[in-house]
Parts: sequence; C-alpha cells; structure tokens
Amino acid sequence: MPSTWGKIFKITTFGESHGTSVGVVIEGLPGGMPFSLEEIQKDLSRRRPGQNLLTTPRKEDDEVRVVSGVFEGKTIGSPVCLFVDNKNAIGRDYEKFRHIYRPSHADFTYDAKYGFRSHVGGGRASVRETIGRVAAGAIARVILERELGISTIAWVDSIGTVNADLESNPPKSFEEVDSNDVRCPDPKAAPLMEEKIREVRKIGDSIGGTIRAVVRNCPPGLGDPVYDKLDGDLGRAVLSIPACKGFEIGSGFEGTKYRGSEHNDEFYVEEGTGRIRTKTNRSGGLQGGISNGENITIRAAFKPTATISIEQGTVDDTPENTILKAGGRHDPCVLPRAVPIVEAAINLVLIDAYFYQRSLHPEWWQKHSLK
Amino acid sequence: MPSTWGKIFKITTFGESHGTSVGVVIEGLPGGMPFSLEEIQKDLSRRRPGQNLLTTPRKEDDEVRVVSGVFEGKTIGSPVCLFVDNKNAIGRDYEKFRHIYRPSHADFTYDAKYGFRSHVGGGRASVRETIGRVAAGAIARVILERELGISTIAWVDSIGTVNADLESNPPKSFEEVDSNDVRCPDPKAAPLMEEKIREVRKIGDSIGGTIRAVVRNCPPGLGDPVYDKLDGDLGRAVLSIPACKGFEIGSGFEGTKYRGSEHNDEFYVEEGTGRIRTKTNRSGGLQGGISNGENITIRAAFKPTATISIEQGTVDDTPENTILKAGGRHDPCVLPRAVPIVEAAINLVLIDAYFYQRSLHPEWWQKHSLK
Amino acid sequence: MPSTWGKIFKITTFGESHGTSVGVVIEGLPGGMPFSLEEIQKDLSRRRPGQNLLTTPRKEDDEVRVVSGVFEGKTIGSPVCLFVDNKNAIGRDYEKFRHIYRPSHADFTYDAKYGFRSHVGGGRASVRETIGRVAAGAIARVILERELGISTIAWVDSIGTVNADLESNPPKSFEEVDSNDVRCPDPKAAPLMEEKIREVRKIGDSIGGTIRAVVRNCPPGLGDPVYDKLDGDLGRAVLSIPACKGFEIGSGFEGTKYRGSEHNDEFYVEEGTGRIRTKTNRSGGLQGGISNGENITIRAAFKPTATISIEQGTVDDTPENTILKAGGRHDPCVLPRAVPIVEAAINLVLIDAYFYQRSLHPEWWQKHSLK
Amino acid sequence: MPSTWGKIFKITTFGESHGTSVGVVIEGLPGGMPFSLEEIQKDLSRRRPGQNLLTTPRKEDDEVRVVSGVFEGKTIGSPVCLFVDNKNAIGRDYEKFRHIYRPSHADFTYDAKYGFRSHVGGGRASVRETIGRVAAGAIARVILERELGISTIAWVDSIGTVNADLESNPPKSFEEVDSNDVRCPDPKAAPLMEEKIREVRKIGDSIGGTIRAVVRNCPPGLGDPVYDKLDGDLGRAVLSIPACKGFEIGSGFEGTKYRGSEHNDEFYVEEGTGRIRTKTNRSGGLQGGISNGENITIRAAFKPTATISIEQGTVDDTPENTILKAGGRHDPCVLPRAVPIVEAAINLVLIDAYFYQRSLHPEWWQKHSLK
Repeated sequence: MPSTWGKIFKITTFGESHGTSVGVVIEGLPGGMPFSLEEIQKDLSRRRPGQNLLTTPRKEDDEVRVVSGVFEGKTIGSPVCLFVDNKNAIGRDYEKFRHIYRPSHADFTYDAKYGFRSHVGGGRASVRETIGRVAAGAIARVILERELGISTIAWVDSIGTVNADLESNPPKSFEEVDSNDVRCPDPKAAPLMEEKIREVRKIGDSIGGTIRAVVRNCPPGLGDPVYDKLDGDLGRAVLSIPACKGFEIGSGFEGTKYRGSEHNDEFYVEEGTGRIRTKTNRSGGLQGGISNGENITIRAAFKPTATISIEQGTVDDTPENTILKAGGRHDPCVLPRAVPIVEAAINLVLIDAYFYQRSLHPEWWQKHSLK
Repeated sequence: MPSTWGKIFKITTFGESHGTSVGVVIEGLPGGMPFSLEEIQKDLSRRRPGQNLLTTPRKEDDEVRVVSGVFEGKTIGSPVCLFVDNKNAIGRDYEKFRHIYRPSHADFTYDAKYGFRSHVGGGRASVRETIGRVAAGAIARVILERELGISTIAWVDSIGTVNADLESNPPKSFEEVDSNDVRCPDPKAAPLMEEKIREVRKIGDSIGGTIRAVVRNCPPGLGDPVYDKLDGDLGRAVLSIPACKGFEIGSGFEGTKYRGSEHNDEFYVEEGTGRIRTKTNRSGGLQGGISNGENITIRAAFKPTATISIEQGTVDDTPENTILKAGGRHDPCVLPRAVPIVEAAINLVLIDAYFYQRSLHPEWWQKHSLK
Repeated sequence: MPSTWGKIFKITTFGESHGTSVGVVIEGLPGGMPFSLEEIQKDLSRRRPGQNLLTTPRKEDDEVRVVSGVFEGKTIGSPVCLFVDNKNAIGRDYEKFRHIYRPSHADFTYDAKYGFRSHVGGGRASVRETIGRVAAGAIARVILERELGISTIAWVDSIGTVNADLESNPPKSFEEVDSNDVRCPDPKAAPLMEEKIREVRKIGDSIGGTIRAVVRNCPPGLGDPVYDKLDGDLGRAVLSIPACKGFEIGSGFEGTKYRGSEHNDEFYVEEGTGRIRTKTNRSGGLQGGISNGENITIRAAFKPTATISIEQGTVDDTPENTILKAGGRHDPCVLPRAVPIVEAAINLVLIDAYFYQRSLHPEWWQKHSLK
Repeated sequence: MPSTWGKIFKITTFGESHGTSVGVVIEGLPGGMPFSLEEIQKDLSRRRPGQNLLTTPRKEDDEVRVVSGVFEGKTIGSPVCLFVDNKNAIGRDYEKFRHIYRPSHADFTYDAKYGFRSHVGGGRASVRETIGRVAAGAIARVILERELGISTIAWVDSIGTVNADLESNPPKSFEEVDSNDVRCPDPKAAPLMEEKIREVRKIGDSIGGTIRAVVRNCPPGLGDPVYDKLDGDLGRAVLSIPACKGFEIGSGFEGTKYRGSEHNDEFYVEEGTGRIRTKTNRSGGLQGGISNGENITIRAAFKPTATISIEQGTVDDTPENTILKAGGRHDPCVLPRAVPIVEAAINLVLIDAYFYQRSLHPEWWQKHSLK
C-alpha cells in the first residue's frame, strides 16, 4: 500500500486505528533547522476528534512525539519520525462488522483488493491516517511561512445547502476560522451550519459540505508544467483526503460558462512595486500549472460521512443481503476537522514544489527567499 | 521539467511546437505483446487540430511512427518511443509575442520559473504536448480492454451554458460520441453547442465547457487507499490537461448537499451472477480510493481557451502595460479535442493501477483476467 | 536524507543511536500473508552487537515489535512499521566528540553537508541504521523462499590476509555459517580469523575483510537490462552498507584477465530436466543484468572499522589540528555482523525485482511460482 | 523495461540497434542555460565504434541532433530529447542468431524474462544503448565543471594481465588519455596493451581489463548517507554498463587487508587555505557515503567481450545443444570505448547529487558555486 507523498520533501505514513500508534516519516528535511513540536501539536489539535459537540464523541488527545531526526532542538537532516499513540482504540465495538460491508465504506473494496482486512476501525481507510499528513504539513507550513512568507488558510464554505458568503472577505488568520466550532468565519452562516449538523446528529445521520482555501504570498514560479502542474498536484493531494469527491482551482466549474474575453485575467504592472499582477484571478493563481503570484484559490467537495446510525440495506461477505444498524461513535460532519487536513495537503504540495524549484533554479531562491 | 507519468506503466513525453517533433517514451510495457500502430493513430486522429470547423484551422495530420521497442510487430519489453513530427510549425507567426505576456497563458509564469522561454507556440504549455499522452493512452486502452474488458468513454457534456441531458443514457461507443463534430451524443444539445462555438469563433472569442467520462467493467480492487487513491490519481491526470480547472468523481460537488442516509450506496447481491453490487452509484465507482466494480464516473471543467482575437490589456517583459491583439489560429473551444485526451488520462491511471495490483496480488489477476 | 529502498517492495528506515528507537516502514507487502515476527527476530539476532567476544561489548537485544500493517497474524496490505528500541544509548560517552572529526568517520562530511550533526553515536552513519534493512530483508527472505524457493547465504571469506577456501564447497545453510563466531564455515581458516580479530582487539585496532554470498534457485528472468541491472542493484545495495568499499559479481576483477573464449559460459541442455544451464558460471548467474537460473555469486569488500582506540591525528571543527584517542566500545571487525546485512541487501533487491517482474509478466509468475 | 536514471537530473534512454535510432530524454535541466551540441558530440565521438583498429570495424558516426528542449541556443527547462540515428544496422547479419542463445550474451535471459526478443543486434543489451547516457553525461559534465569546477577523467588501467603504473601520476586531461588508441596514458604499458588486443583480434577472441577514474575538485557534502551513498550510486551506475562485473571505491578489496590504524585517513588543516584535508585517501574521497573534498577514486572490472569468432558449444531455443561460430564484427576489447561511458556514469551520479543537495541546502550552493 503506497503511503508516500512527495519527491523531495517526502513523507511516508503508517498505522491503523486498530494498532498502537500512527505516524509519519519525513525524508527531505534540511539539517540545522529549528524544530518545533508545538507547531505540529497545534495543527494536530485542530484535527483531533472530540474537539466539540459537532465532531465525534470519540476522544483522542493526539499527542505527538518525535522518534528520530532531531537533536538538541534542531533537525540533523535525517528522517524525522513522528508518532501519535492510539489511546481510544476499542476493538470490541467492531466485532459485528467482521463480516459486513458497510455501505460507502472501503470494507468491500479492501477485501476485493487485498483478500483480507482489519474490520476494526476501517484500517488505513480511517481518517486517523491523516494524522501523519497533518503533522508533516505543519513542518511544511512553518518552512513556507518563514522562507517565502506563504500562508495557507482553509475554512468551511458550505454545510449541506447552507453557504457562507465570504468571497469578498476571505479569512486571513486561523483565529478567524476557529472563531466558531464549524470553522466557517461567516457569522451569519455559521450558526445555521451548526444547527444543521446538530440536526443530523440527533437523528444519527450525517451531512456533507465544501471547503475553500486560499494561499497568499506564493511567489511566481512554483509548480511544473506537464504532469506535475500545481493544479493536478493540489487536486490529487486534496482528493486523497477521505470523503473528498470534487476539486476546483480558480473559477472551476463555474468558469466553463464564460467566454475567453470574460474569463482571461488581464495583466498589469502594479504601481509602486513594479510587480506583474492580474486584474482578476479566475486562474486561481495558476497559469500553465505554475503559480503566478496571485492568491491560489481552491474549493473541495466532501460527501456526507458514510457512518450513520440509521438502518441500511447491505451485504455480508458470504455474500448475502442483510441489514446494518451501525450505532457507534461517528462524526456527523467531517468538514470542521477536514479544514487543517486540507491546509496540510496544500502545504505538502507547495513545499515539494519549492524544494524542486530551488534544486534547478537556486537563483530563483535567492530572489524570493526572505532569509 | 518533470514530464513523466506512472510508476510501472511509465511514460515520459517531450517536444514543443517550435521544434521538429513531439513524442513519448513508454517504459513499462510487457514483451511479446502484439503492437498496433493503427490503434494509436485512431486516438491521435481524434485529438488532432483541424478536424472540422469547430476546431483550429491549423492542420496537422499527426502521423505517428515507432522508433523503438517493437520488433516484427510485437513489443520486446524495451522502451517504446513514439514520434509525431510537427509539420505546420510557423515561427514567424510568433515574433510579436517575444516580449509579451498573453493573458491567462503560461508566458509570464514560464519566465518567472525558468528565466527564459520559447515564445513560439507556447513551448510545453502547448496542447501539442498531449500527443504523447494520447499515444501512450491508446496502448493502455488496448491492454485494459483485452485483459480486463475495461472501456473508457468520454464526451462533451456542456459548452458554455448549453448542457447535454445524458445521465440516464450515457454513450456506449466512440461512434456515438463521434456522431457529431462537438462530440456530444445528445442530439438536441449538440446543434446548440455547435452554434455556440461558431458564434464565439466568428467574433474571435472562445468558450469553455465540461466533459464527462464513464469507465465500464473495471473489476473491484484497482487503486490504492492513501495518497494514490484512484480519485486523486484520476484527478491529477485530468487536472494536468491544459485548461482543466475542476474535477469531480461520482456525486462530486452536488453530493455535498446530501445527508449520509440519502447519499450512501447500499450493497446488494446481484441475482444470477452473485456479484456484490450497489443500488446507486453516488460513489462514482470508487470507495476508499479503490474501484468497487461499478461504473467509474468523472466530470471535468475546461475553461475557455485563453487565445482570443479580441483586444486585451496586458504587460510586456519590461514590464510595461500594453495592448494585445492576438490574431492567429486558435481553437474557439478545446472541448471536442479534449475528449480523447481525458480518455487517455484515465486509461493511463488505470493501467498503472492494474500493473501495480498484479505485482502484489497475482491471484487477483488470475481471478479477473480475461486471458 | 533519502532513506528509501525499492520500487514496489519499498522500505523506509529511520532512527539514530542517540534517539529512542530505530525502525522501518515497508510499503509494498501483499495483504493476507502470514506474518512471522520470529523470522524477523532471527535475522536481527544475527546482526545485533554483543553476540560474542569478536564483536563490540556494547549489548543490545534488538527486540523487534510491530506497530502497524498486521492484523490477527496476517498482513493487511498496509504499511508494516517495525520498531526496535535503543536500550544502551549512553550520550555521555560522546561528549568529547562534539567538536572533533574522527578519521574515516562521517563526522566531517555530515557537517559539510547538513551544517549540523549529532555527535552522539554517529547519527544515521551508525551501523544501527541497518536494523531496518535486516528486519525488512527477513520478510523478503521468507517470501522469496516460499514462493520461488530462493535461498541467499553469505559468509565471511577473509579477515585481513586470512582467506577461506570454500570455492568448491560453499555453505548451504545458516547453521553451517553460524557454526563459529566469525561466520566462516571453513574449519581451517575460521580459527585463524578469530585469532586475528582477538589480536587487533587487544591493541585497540581493527581489521577488514571480505564477504561472499550465493543465491540459489533464482529462476531466470529477474532483473532489468539497463540501469536496473541486477548487477548494479545488488552492487548499490551492498555498497550502501557501512564500510563496504568493493563489490564483484561472478568472476569480478579476476575475470578481466581472461580471454572471451576462456571466460564465456557455454550453454547446454540439462539431461532429465531439459533446463538450459551453463557449464561454468563466470557470469555469476547474471547475463545482461538478468538472472539466468545459475547461482548468483557475489563478493564484497569491507574496510577495517574506523573506530579504534589507538591515538590518531585529526582536526576539530574550528578547524585546528588535534589528537584523538577514541576509547569507547567498538567492533574490532564488522565482518561477522555484516553477514546478515549482506543477505538482507540481496533479498531486498531480489524481492523488488520479483514483484516488478510479475507486474508485467504474470505468466512468468505462473510458470515459476511454487504456490 | 525501466530505462531511467536519476531523481532530479533524470534521463530516460530508448532504442535498439535493430531500429532507426537511439536516444535520450533529459528531464531535470534548468532553463536559460547555454546548450552546446559540440560538447555532446565530443563525448559521443570518443564512444563510437570504428574509431581505430582496436575497436570494432563496424562504423557509425553517431551524429547527435536535438529534438526538443532547446530554443535559440539555450535550454528552456523542458525535456531535452537527443537523437542518434543507426546508419549501419544490417539485419541480415543476424538471421542465424534467431533461435540461438549466444554464450554469455543476454539472448537467453531476455527470452526467459520477456518471452520474446529481437535477435538483431542484441536489442537493448547492445552497447549502443550507452549512447544516451554518454550524451546526457556530457551535459552533466559541462554543468559540473562550470558551476563547481569538478572534472572526471577515466582511463584504461589494465588489459588482460598488462597493468598500467599510474598511481603516482594519474592523467589530468582527456588529451593525455586519448594520446593513444587504447586510452592508457602509461607510455610503457600502452603498446603492450595494444599488442594484446591485436593478438586476440587476430584469432577472433577478446580480452577484458580494468578502468580507473578520478574525480577532482568535488566539494565536500555531495551524496546521501543511507541507500543513496555516493559509493552505491556510483557503483550502480558503473555496474550497469554492459560487461562490467566489479567496482571499487578508494582502497577497495586491497583495503580489506589493512588494520584500522593503517587504513584510516587522518585529517589535517591545510596551510594557506585552512581547508580540512586528509593525509591519505584510502576512503577514495567518500566518507559515510558523502564526498569529503578529496579526489574520488574508482576502479571498474570489464569482462572480455562475449562476442567472439571462435567456435563455442551452446543451445538453441528448442532447446537443443548446438555449435555456434559467430563471425561478424565485434570489439575485441571494449575497454577503450568504455572510458567515456564510465565518465558519463560518474557525471550523471554527481549532477543528481548536486541538484539534490542544493534543493535542501541552497546555502551550500552559495558557498561552493563558482558562479
């Protein structure tokens, strides 16, 4: 099961919810860099279950520890292995799932692929797998911010049919986003979203939604023009988050309705700075797969959580038709917890593009580095 | 400039429109396999410019020849290099673009990244680069069909605001799709789409649209659960096609509005075959990143072609503000020609997933192979 | 610091001797396979320090535990993470090495590369890093033996100028090799080798030597003809073991003195089996980078351990000339402990070649698999 | 058939001698770099057959042309595809080899692996495949020399039992090496070597030998400490050259006879420069897999050419025992032509290590770059 992301800043994750721990190994870190476990813990805490009443009641403190690659507070160039123990793994909860394929879960496909699976906690299909990406993403975030000034902020933009209205005023800080439990910084939409989530939770159902993200201060020149376009790499990173079924960059599907003369982003020279800018940003900050210096804007679709407490028809592995009444603890809506995962996905793509760019063009690094 | 796709069935493309040729090297082909240049030419001909009045007037016959890897009509296991010569490259057309950054093209970002660029034909940002993927994709298509029975068919689903209505009746053959120039097999929508394209072409403008694709007969078990989910790999493959800005699998963005109880795909045992099936297919054939045996359904957004003949504000590389009146030959709408490119992207993802799956699970191959 | 080996059966190692643990993540394991921690422990115990008086007095029991990828005694296809804790890490021993570059160690080169290093235990340059390869190699060994009947056996062939004479009678079992502490199954040479090691240990010095290995029952067809020749992949795997400075396959350097007519391995049809065999095996079981069914024969050179207790001239990081008297615990000769590491290196190469071969040629697998 | 070398400066080669052309695609080239076809041709001409009476009488001028990636004399960052046409491919010569397995060639192993092969010219097992590496290696050579001052020079060190004596006076220029046909700059040994080659050629036989190489001015810090040690990467690169069966770095096999106190390279501070140097160089310029600033010294073993005109026993693909009398044109000794191939192999390893190092440590690049 390939579990590696990245070419230079390369991460490999491991662990299932049935086991003792989950973790990540990061291979492409420079040596001599200050290493902050606090920054990693910060992002993990935004991701952890049991944060508030909108998420699963399953509690995990998701405390991270470092196993390798750090010495006297600094990286030494060698692989950094980070570990988070599973404290709340209760195998008994799952015995009834041993032979049953839960609808819209990966139980059946795992069996079809591997011929054997762990029925406890969904194995690698568990959202617990994302701990590794979030931990590694935090390291990427710190480097990108320190060396290039890049900031990536995501938020919940819709829950079911409740939409935020933030196009003219997207959030600029994690604090803004975290100002409410649903992580939607629109004060009008947020209470409606929370209400929606409470409503589905009460009846044992779940609900989907969308997340938006914006990357600010990305210098022009990141990303590669063919198969490794930033569009595609960001798309893959986000679409590989559990439950994500759609991805847009810039104008996305809406942009298909426009004429070229309406959609093209005209360039102009910014007064004062002399920088080349675009008047509009329908490209979403990317042209030819490469960043153009404008904000990178992303939208992602998350389907409703597959785990619900409502009775459903399904099959067992005989296979015979049967009925499933799941019970158990689940997130009625993954969106609030998915916010830091989307940010991590983006940061992992950007740092790898950054390290690749300076491998071939160190003079680009000299020009854009804040150091 | 990384130009490689795939882990086992691996392709590397090369060539710009300013050069003599474009091509592809394919590394992971089994030996002893019958090799058909006709099948490759068939797909290339669906992609080539100048097919009809809806596409660019620039004509290329895009005739493919084989340079290596084939002996007496069969593959020998070694890299297959395929070549298509550029017959219609006219450098003079482009002299006026030497110092100008065309809006929503990759001119500016290439300069920002590489410090130097070819102003002729857009370099690698040209859609001419896709010849390599389409050629390699044809080989993948033949293997997937012969060994697993898989068929991938794409079509134009909307042009601007004109939508096809094919949900209950998606096309089942290339002939259906190719029954009109716009490659939309809805006999009501197609003429409206063609009219729309003719309209924008007349005024030197362009228009976007969406493509849908369906993969039939994909056995359960392809794809990997973490970063290499089929969702993400298909997304990356499609989003790396020039002008693509959005991607959906299954219910996509629409699915975010549903509750879990409405969205989940219930399993049942199919009478007669005993196969495990789902009653609905909102998952789009993928669960946990792995195919579940249902149709894989995809939707992709293509922005309007950036090249238009209408006057636009932009900058040169001084940089100073200036005006661009492009002229030149261009596609008023890339959608019809993008259909075989989307199919190739999908087939390249599937064949790689197939070869990976049988590397670890040859008993899966024994079960599902038609041979 | 890239720490990954393999394309399909892919391992990533982590950990330094200054940390709490070392370990490995294995990504390309099939699901549903019986998993034996005992087999892994067996190989680790052959590698561990403090086995006998010929190795370092530093004792570690190197007990392995499994963190992920195994469920109810079988693999589930997901990454297997294996862990070995460092029980005998004593940081104080190393304080005097903080600013000193030990001759022929990696202290200086690490600083030159990363700008910072751990002076404790040599960081990743420690032979402790090889725990991960040996653990993963044990899994590879079991699969290769069970599915193809392959067996890989290495032994010490020389210590200093003391040579074994085993060409006509190479060992056929681990028991033979392990029949003495020096792991040389030549009963005449072994005592002389042990005496040599005791002699250098007494004066705080060290000694080098060579290891030979033979792979039996490798079916023809493994390995790839260009950059991934088995010759090169085996060479890289063995040369990446600490202290290895030379590698030969088949006739090696000696073979350069021959004429083609003397060196070529004539083919013949083996009576009874009808198998194609060679009369001689100067090719060492590989032709064109691919296994030919004969024994694969390897020889590797290990320089004397760099750590000695004898006074040496060196520099500190000022840099200024200085004198180093190391003291501390060290292996007077790494050869006996390197035997299982060489075997692991070989098995990791072969399993990856095997998985790649059956990804493209499952019919080859059908022909050669013992299952 | 994987045919790719490198992680960042990545090359993919293609082509067999039975086809129209051979070539290479290079993916990781910076943009805006002056591109010299002359430098590439220079190295190819040192490699080509028919240079003089010591090599094969088969003549090829091996003229290179550029297909992509270059515009107005400079690279544009996109893949550079280089092509060399096969002018002297004569299929008829080979008909008698259709069903015969030539001893110590890859005929049998190709059939065992791929189930089908080209009997014309050995397919990819032909030394003609090395054109791609030499062409790409020339580009690497130019960059390494211009940006870091690195120079790599190889020469023939022995032919059969005739040894050069150049340890105290290794060659410093290509001109020195090319001063005679055998490419051995020892004026005493060279005539004896040439005589030896003429002797075996006369009787239709062949002879092996060794090549040495030295890399000068490599700054400390290139190479990675675990699986990607320079030792291993150089070993793999050289061992993947056809006919290479042995590899040494520094003291190699000879060094195994020494004690640590004799073998260790003591450091000292060089007067004047203040640089950290070693008094001896038994490490061959590498410590812990990383360059230490001393000369990197390599030795490689090449077996005698398998193609000879002397009668040999072998088998056909029935299989039945038979007799082969090869005839045809062949190199009686590959060594002189292998010299530029070894240099290319080394340069390809070093440039990739260089690009990787500056991706993570651009401050290292600032310190060591000559620009």
